[in-house]
Amino acid sequence: MNFMQVDVAIIGAGSAGLCAYHAATAAGARATIIEGGECGTTCARVGCMPSKLLIAAAESAHAIRKAPGFGVHVEGVIRIDGREVMDRVRRERDRFVGFVLREMEAIPEASCIRGHARFINNHTIAVDDHTHLTARSIVIATGSRPDIPDSFKDLGERLIISDDVFNWFDLPNSVAVIGPGSIGLELGQALHRLGVHVVVLGRGGSVGPLNDPEIRAYTIAIFNEEFTLEPDAHIATTLRNGDRIAIRRTGPNDIQETDYFEYVLSATGRIPNVTTIDLSQTTLKLDAKGVPLYDPVTARTVSTDGDSPIFIAGDAGNFIPLLHEAIDEGGIAGKNAAFLALGKQLNPGLRRAPIGIVFTEPQIGIVGGGYHSLKAGTFAIGQASFEDQGRARILLKNKGLLNVYGDLNTGRFLGAEMLAPAAEHLAHLLSWALQNKMTVTQMLEMPFYHPVIEEGLRTALQHLNSKLHTRAHA
Amino acid sequence: MNFMQVDVAIIGAGSAGLCAYHAATAAGARATIIEGGECGTTCARVGCMPSKLLIAAAESAHAIRKAPGFGVHVEGVIRIDGREVMDRVRRERDRFVGFVLREMEAIPEASCIRGHARFINNHTIAVDDHTHLTARSIVIATGSRPDIPDSFKDLGERLIISDDVFNWFDLPNSVAVIGPGSIGLELGQALHRLGVHVVVLGRGGSVGPLNDPEIRAYTIAIFNEEFTLEPDAHIATTLRNGDRIAIRRTGPNDIQETDYFEYVLSATGRIPNVTTIDLSQTTLKLDAKGVPLYDPVTARTVSTDGDSPIFIAGDAGNFIPLLHEAIDEGGIAGKNAAFLALGKQLNPGLRRAPIGIVFTEPQIGIVGGGYHSLKAGTFAIGQASFEDQGRARILLKNKGLLNVYGDLNTGRFLGAEMLAPAAEHLAHLLSWALQNKMTVTQMLEMPFYHPVIEEGLRTALQHLNSKLHTRAHA
Repeated sequence: MNFMQVDVAIIGAGSAGLCAYHAATAAGARATIIEGGECGTTCARVGCMPSKLLIAAAESAHAIRKAPGFGVHVEGVIRIDGREVMDRVRRERDRFVGFVLREMEAIPEASCIRGHARFINNHTIAVDDHTHLTARSIVIATGSRPDIPDSFKDLGERLIISDDVFNWFDLPNSVAVIGPGSIGLELGQALHRLGVHVVVLGRGGSVGPLNDPEIRAYTIAIFNEEFTLEPDAHIATTLRNGDRIAIRRTGPNDIQETDYFEYVLSATGRIPNVTTIDLSQTTLKLDAKGVPLYDPVTARTVSTDGDSPIFIAGDAGNFIPLLHEAIDEGGIAGKNAAFLALGKQLNPGLRRAPIGIVFTEPQIGIVGGGYHSLKAGTFAIGQASFEDQGRARILLKNKGLLNVYGDLNTGRFLGAEMLAPAAEHLAHLLSWALQNKMTVTQMLEMPFYHPVIEEGLRTALQHLNSKLHTRAHA
Repeated sequence: MNFMQVDVAIIGAGSAGLCAYHAATAAGARATIIEGGECGTTCARVGCMPSKLLIAAAESAHAIRKAPGFGVHVEGVIRIDGREVMDRVRRERDRFVGFVLREMEAIPEASCIRGHARFINNHTIAVDDHTHLTARSIVIATGSRPDIPDSFKDLGERLIISDDVFNWFDLPNSVAVIGPGSIGLELGQALHRLGVHVVVLGRGGSVGPLNDPEIRAYTIAIFNEEFTLEPDAHIATTLRNGDRIAIRRTGPNDIQETDYFEYVLSATGRIPNVTTIDLSQTTLKLDAKGVPLYDPVTARTVSTDGDSPIFIAGDAGNFIPLLHEAIDEGGIAGKNAAFLALGKQLNPGLRRAPIGIVFTEPQIGIVGGGYHSLKAGTFAIGQASFEDQGRARILLKNKGLLNVYGDLNTGRFLGAEMLAPAAEHLAHLLSWALQNKMTVTQMLEMPFYHPVIEEGLRTALQHLNSKLHTRAHA
C-alpha cells in the first residue's frame, strides 16, 4: 500500500477531469488524477465525435437521394457500403481518442494513478488495494454511462447502447431505438438514412431537449415523414426470438402491431457514475439519485457538516451533460479545489448562456433555459417557419419552425427553441445575443446578409418585436 | 404632358427604391416612384437569388462525387441534366421576382410612373415625354449594371454577362469567366461543378472581396485544386472563331497557351446607373466616375450650391452594393427625403457592421472594413486553419483559413477575413460581435458548442487573444 498526500485529487480523466487537473496545476496546486476505466473521453470515444461521423455518412446518402430535385441524376443504384461507413467512423473516432490519450500521457507519471477510486472520508481516497491518497480537496469527475431499463436486460447481446454502435464493423438491417433524446434521434435518423430499418420509440412524449409544445409537435411530424418516431409509444412486449427481437406495441389507432429488429438500441439517457465511489463515506448531501448537490458557480458540493472540500464537474454532476460545459466545470472545479487547498478564496466561475443542439436534419436547437423555464404572462413568442424561407427553399432544406422568446417588460431576448436548417449556427448567434443581454430591438439592428438562413431568424425576431411593442404601447 | 407635384420622387423601383418609397410614405410624405426598366430587383432577377440556385445544384453534384469518402457509392454515372438544372433556376427565380413584382403592384397606381427619368434641375424630373414632375426632394435609386470591358465588345452574342446565365435553357460546354470577383467566383465554381469547362481569369490579382494577402493566397491555391483561377492573368488575345472564342494567354511559366470556349462571361464588376439621368442638370458634386458624392449616414448627396434636396440609395451610390445595405439605404434615403420635404430635421440612419459573403465552397467571408483598412502596428492577427478542424474533418469540408484582427490598445475585435466552411454563419456571429463592440476576451467567454465549425473560430480568437495580452504585458 502506497500512502500519498497531495493538494488536489481528481477522480476521473475524462474531459472534465483533465481540465480540472490542468486548472489545479495552473493555480499552483500539486494535483493527482485517478483513472480506473477506459481512457479517452465520452465525447471522443462514444459521444459527440463518432455520432457526427455516422451522421456525415447519412447526410451524404441523403444528399444523393435529393439530387434529382436540382436536376442532378444518378444512373444506377446507391450502394451504402456498411463496412466502409463504419470503418471511417471507427478510424476517425480512434484519431480523436488519440488526441485525448496524448493529453493524458502528457501528464507526469507521478501525478497519475490507475485504478478504481473509493472514498474513505471527505479527504481520503483508496485506489484499488494499492494506494491510500489524502488530499486537501477532491474533484469528482467520474462522468456518466448509458442507463439501461431493467425491462430490456433479458435481450442479451441484442440489446445495445450507443457505445456499441461505434464499434460495429458493418451496418445491421434493423434497429429499434428506445428513447428519442438527442442520441436516439441522431442515431435513429442517421441509421435510417443509411438504409437501416429504424423505429424510434419513447415514453412520455419528450423529443430531444425540446420543451416548447409547438416546436415539439412540429418536430414529431417532420421526422415521421422519414421514419417512425413515437415519443409516447405503448410497448406491450419486447421478446427475443432467436436472433431477432419482436416488439409488440399499440399504434396510434389502437391497432396492435409487431415489428422485428436485429437490435434494440437503448438510448433512454445517461446516469452519473457516482454509485461505485462510496459517497456514503463522505458527509455530502445527495439528491434522490445519489448525485451530490453542488453550486454550479463554484462547483463545490454541499456537505452536512460545514464547508465541503469536494468539488464536482462534468457529467458526474448531472447539471448540463455537454462537452463544453464539462470543460468549463472542470476548469472551475480544478481552480477552486486548488484555491481551497492553498487557503485562498474560491472564485465564481464563468457560466455561459445555455445552448443545446441535436445534429439531426433539420437540426434541433435550444437557447436559454427553454420554454418551460419562462413564466406565463411575462414573455411573448415570435415565430418563423422555414417552409417558404428563401435560402432554405433554394437548398431544398425548407423545413423548420423557430420560436423566439422575449421579455414583455424589458424587451430582452430570453431564448429560443427550433427545428431548423443550420440550427447549430442560429443557436450560436442567439446564445451570444442572450449572454450579451441584448434586446430584440438591438438584435434587429445587427447585420443580416442575403440570402441566408439567418433571415428566417430575423422574421421571427420581427414578429416578436411587434408583440413586445404592442404591449409596451398598451 | 402631365404636370405633377409631390413631396418625394423616387427614381427606380428596385430594392432600394421600394424601401425608399415605403419609408417616405410611412414618414407622412406623398411619394411617387418612377421605373423605366425591367421590373424586379437586381437581387431577385439576376443577382443573389438565381446565383444561389445554380450553386445549390452544383453542390448537389459535388456531394455525390464526395460520397465515396463516407462509404457511400453510386453504381453508375452522374448525369447532370442541364435543362433541368436551368429550369429550376429560372422557375424559382421567377417566383422570387414575382414577390417583388407583387410588392410593386401593391403601390397605388397614382403613385407609380412608368418611363425613363431625366433631371431637369434639382427639383424637377422629366419622365419620357409624358410627365413633368416637381418634387420637394428626390431619391436616386437607379441601381447598377454589369460593366463590360471594351476589348470584349466584338465577341458578339458569345460575350455574356451574369444576367444571361440565368436565362439559359441548358448548360454550355465551356465558359471563360473574366473577373474573379464575388459573381465570377460563384458562377465559375458552380459551372465547373456542373461539368462545364471553366477558367476564371482576372487582372491585378484581386479575389472576391478579400484583401488579406494570406487569405487571398490560400484561396487562390484552394480554388486551383478544382479549376483554373488566375487572378492576374496575361491575356494576349480574345478572338471569336465561328461559334468559339479563342483566348490566348501567357501562363504562370511564361508558356503561351490557347484555350477555346463557347462563351466569355464578363464579370468584371458592376457600374452605377447614373449616366443616363442627366445629372449634369443638377448641382450635385460627382466623383471621377460620375457618381454623386453623399453622406452614408443620411444618404443625402452633396451639392455645389448649398444643401442638396437629392438623396441616393442602393447600388446607384456605389457605397456597398449588397441587398441588405440597399434596403437600409433605401429606408434612410426615403425617410430623410420625406423629413426634408416636410420641413423636419434629417435623421442619421442605422449603419450595420460591414459583412461580405461569397457563396463558393469553401465560402469567403469578410467582416469589418477588411485588412487594408487596419493601420499597421495597431492590430494583431489571430489565425486558425480548418484543415484539421474536428467538425470540418468529420464533414470532409476541412479546407479553410481564418484571420481575425484585434486592436492592440483596446483588445477590441476589429474584423476578419476567411475562406472557410460555413463562413456565412461565422461572418454573422463576427459581425454581430463587431457591432456590439466586443473585446476578444469577451468573445471567448461566449458559448462554443461541440463539435462545431465555430470551434475553429475559437482557435483563431484564442491565438489573437494571446497576442493581444502579450503586448499588454510588454
